[in-house]
Amino acid sequence: MRTYRKELWFDIPTRREFRNITPQVKACLDESGVREGLLLCNAMHITASVFINDDEHGLHNDFERWLEGLAPHEPLSHYQHNNTGEDNGDAHLKRTVMGREVVVAVTNGQLDFGPWEQIFYGEFDGRRRKRVLVKIIGE
Amino acid sequence: MRTYRKELWFDIPTRREFRNITPQVKACLDESGVREGLLLCNAMHITASVFINDDEHGLHNDFERWLEGLAPHEPLSHYQHNNTGEDNGDAHLKRTVMGREVVVAVTNGQLDFGPWEQIFYGEFDGRRRKRVLVKIIGE
Amino acid sequence: MRTYRKELWFDIPTRREFRNITPQVKACLDESGVREGLLLCNAMHITASVFINDDEHGLHNDFERWLEGLAPHEPLSHYQHNNTGEDNGDAHLKRTVMGREVVVAVTNGQLDFGPWEQIFYGEFDGRRRKRVLVKIIGE
Repeated sequence: MRTYRKELWFDIPTRREFRNITPQVKACLDESGVREGLLLCNAMHITASVFINDDEHGLHNDFERWLEGLAPHEPLSHYQHNNTGEDNGDAHLKRTVMGREVVVAVTNGQLDFGPWEQIFYGEFDGRRRKRVLVKIIGE
Repeated sequence: MRTYRKELWFDIPTRREFRNITPQVKACLDESGVREGLLLCNAMHITASVFINDDEHGLHNDFERWLEGLAPHEPLSHYQHNNTGEDNGDAHLKRTVMGREVVVAVTNGQLDFGPWEQIFYGEFDGRRRKRVLVKIIGE
Repeated sequence: MRTYRKELWFDIPTRREFRNITPQVKACLDESGVREGLLLCNAMHITASVFINDDEHGLHNDFERWLEGLAPHEPLSHYQHNNTGEDNGDAHLKRTVMGREVVVAVTNGQLDFGPWEQIFYGEFDGRRRKRVLVKIIGE
């Protein structure tokens, strides 16, 4: 069995952003040499997501507005978590909706994707360096 | 290590439906010959889900009404994504709530499930042929 | 390839609770002897979750209030599922938001976690014995 591990680092300059990380994940898969197996890609922080959806700007705006409706950033006092001195109570909830991780099939050395599947890093509390983990097992 | 891959195709005649695909996934597992390992089952389209819950008709109606409340199909103009000519902005959001994928333990050649666990395909933008991927690794 | 399976049992005395199960999952990993691979941890019941977030009491209260807003327990008649004689229609929906499972990378014999990641069992219909599955594959 072959295993591979890499951390991808991001420093998003705004509080929230969706960034297509498919090229970086593909580069990991190429580097791993795995031809058949499973690839796990997860946020290592609890106010960020990794998810799969479409790379379409209007859709990302829809996600942003929808998440802000489901778990508004303000008023900060709405979240008990913010009593700890944080201001990211909403970010924990938004990340929960979007998900922590994706598991992707590796087939013939490729990410085994449908036509529109792309992997995104979803940042909900940015303006600092944060990490995504890529772990691949297979042969 | 043994690996297995299969696409399951669906052509749901309505916009939305939940379909129990446990029998097809079990058939994949039987065909794979894997006795111990992990099984990934994911939608290959970004307006559909694969999830695990109960096969109970009333619950599925509850899911349908709840998702329509969280991300209504209309008005279409509510979603920037629909400016691309699509009418499925809501479907991307509904699929996000229900999830893209499930990972299931394979033990002794069986799906290692609790008493009520069943795998569903969740269609949110049907009336065309769409795919689910089953990937199994193990031995 | 090495594989490992264990059931963790819980009997939560209230309807809802979040419990940090990271120590039990770590003990499974130690027992497995797996050094490199993937660990799946999933609820075996469809009214419970396994998820990763922060072990902070205020945040858990925020999750509780937020989920109750998204899918209120009462009125029971709000859910068709409750016509079956159950009173847990809301629990199926709450578990869907929080997720059924997590997949965690195993690296050098450890759960490969970021600084704040902890694994929780999310109970939404307690007061009875229920199970979580831990399955590990690797080498």
